[in-house]
Amino acid sequence: MSDALSTQIHLAARPDGWPTPDDFRTVRCELAPLAAGEVRVKNEFLSVDPYMRGRMNDVRSYVPPYALGETIQGGAIGRIVASAADGFAVGDAVLHQHGWSDLVQADAATFRVVPETPGVPLSLRLHVLGMTGLTAYVGLTAIAQLREGDTVFVSGAAGAVGTAVGQIARLLGAGRVIGSAGSAEKVALLTGKYGFDAAFNYRDGDVRGQLAQAAPNGIDVFFDNVGGDHLEAALDAFADGGRAALCGAISGYNSETAVPGPDNLANIITRGLKLEGFTIGNHLGHAPEFQARMAQWLAAGEIAYDETIVDGIERTVDAFLDMMRGANTGKMLVRV
Amino acid sequence: MSDALSTQIHLAARPDGWPTPDDFRTVRCELAPLAAGEVRVKNEFLSVDPYMRGRMNDVRSYVPPYALGETIQGGAIGRIVASAADGFAVGDAVLHQHGWSDLVQADAATFRVVPETPGVPLSLRLHVLGMTGLTAYVGLTAIAQLREGDTVFVSGAAGAVGTAVGQIARLLGAGRVIGSAGSAEKVALLTGKYGFDAAFNYRDGDVRGQLAQAAPNGIDVFFDNVGGDHLEAALDAFADGGRAALCGAISGYNSETAVPGPDNLANIITRGLKLEGFTIGNHLGHAPEFQARMAQWLAAGEIAYDETIVDGIERTVDAFLDMMRGANTGKMLVRV
Repeated sequence: MSDALSTQIHLAARPDGWPTPDDFRTVRCELAPLAAGEVRVKNEFLSVDPYMRGRMNDVRSYVPPYALGETIQGGAIGRIVASAADGFAVGDAVLHQHGWSDLVQADAATFRVVPETPGVPLSLRLHVLGMTGLTAYVGLTAIAQLREGDTVFVSGAAGAVGTAVGQIARLLGAGRVIGSAGSAEKVALLTGKYGFDAAFNYRDGDVRGQLAQAAPNGIDVFFDNVGGDHLEAALDAFADGGRAALCGAISGYNSETAVPGPDNLANIITRGLKLEGFTIGNHLGHAPEFQARMAQWLAAGEIAYDETIVDGIERTVDAFLDMMRGANTGKMLVRV
Repeated sequence: MSDALSTQIHLAARPDGWPTPDDFRTVRCELAPLAAGEVRVKNEFLSVDPYMRGRMNDVRSYVPPYALGETIQGGAIGRIVASAADGFAVGDAVLHQHGWSDLVQADAATFRVVPETPGVPLSLRLHVLGMTGLTAYVGLTAIAQLREGDTVFVSGAAGAVGTAVGQIARLLGAGRVIGSAGSAEKVALLTGKYGFDAAFNYRDGDVRGQLAQAAPNGIDVFFDNVGGDHLEAALDAFADGGRAALCGAISGYNSETAVPGPDNLANIITRGLKLEGFTIGNHLGHAPEFQARMAQWLAAGEIAYDETIVDGIERTVDAFLDMMRGANTGKMLVRV
């Protein structure tokens, strides 16, 4: 087998509703000889994230849709195996956005060398120390303007972003943290390992009623990863002046038709609520501040995390679909 | 007829859907002799406003619901006919919130003496120079953070708030102002007298399509008085980073059941939108700044307005219902 053989997963067709394996194609190709300024990287971990589903559609968004017949782009981390660029040495760990392949080669400027800290696994750069953690931090601070003592509700709280939101909210002074998740085991994890004050299983139904019970005095901040019935429940539970950071709406990502929204939007007016959506690419200026704080929290043992790891690039699509179905706890990763 | 006979309109029952005359009761009563510190005021104009419909329901809101068997509260202006309070002279024009009656008597502290300016009718204190104008100003500035060059869309633009929003947006530097209204005559008024760049009749249907045509480059600011299909259309039309000031949702005020929301809330995330609801009572701190600017604009002839006046307190409920149906252009007032 050649040292230059790359296995890549391409988008073959735009999914209609739930993606199927037919929407993807595994392509093997021989990489060209390394050109000046390029590096070749053997990936160790690939990230599969909910937002990727949106990029598979051909709709206008802050980030352009994935191109058909090209490798699915996204966060990945690996090591340099060949370099023709100053400042990039063989063996360096690098973070990048080239996505779903085992071997990738490109302009060195598209890779970022990351320091390796004893006790901090490289994979954390793809979640608590990376975009996932930054998303949680920015949503709580810049978007939802979290205040000391606030009651915070996080939907889809056992996922990669959700577990970070609950813990960061607590570290930033939230008075009460509530989460929803899709199984009794995840609910137990939230109130145990992750220190949530209350959690409930949304598959038991009646999200409105369960949230009302968990937040008898209402909520001040809502960090939404789910949308749909969760947004509706939050709108009912909000205290006056409440703020929502809308980060994701996974409940609707695989709908084939447009789904009507909550029936209680009038509460936005009568309670003076603020709902703000965000995609993390527009808030990268907060990264240095976030990374400094998160490194301290990790070193002090104040941040727990989980990884659900799937082995083998050939299982990347399965890992993505399982993540969309909620099979993961914490961050879903593919180990190449 | 006694000088102390007051005709008052009370809430008799909480309306279910559209209010009917049976939900109100006209009560005549003899006022008590004037106590120390009180004034007696003969009203000249009563305000009928969309928000009053919400206060007829027994639901939680920033403002408490109207009490059954009491006079409907709201803005009114009149003149003092008897005074037992220092600083309040017979003949003074006073603004107050005692609502739907022809003669009202209460603690002088609940009335505000307003200066009379030649050429500025008293009734303006109930709209462009009052809460209505302040609502438009606060929504555009403090809530939607209007910027120079923004394209602004106002729903229900021919109403009292809407006509003020369009003109204030222009005066504050908006690049393009678009409005919707419920008749061809109102549309003509918007693009004529009120200087809107484009307007359409929402009763022609396809609000999404009509807005897209009026705003080919999208909208930056949405000032919503209507909700429902208008909010949905705006969410489709928003440019990245768009901001909505949600002021009213008259399309749903008389629904007997909860109505599902827009089917495109996901745009809030992908376009990084901000939706904020407000009720003017929480933003009265902007009143001095607003009144100074509006007085200048009025003096310079830069603000047009309309009043739809109904004569006779006995027609107040009819005026209120007609306003809810959109029979008014500009401010709907009852002349006592």
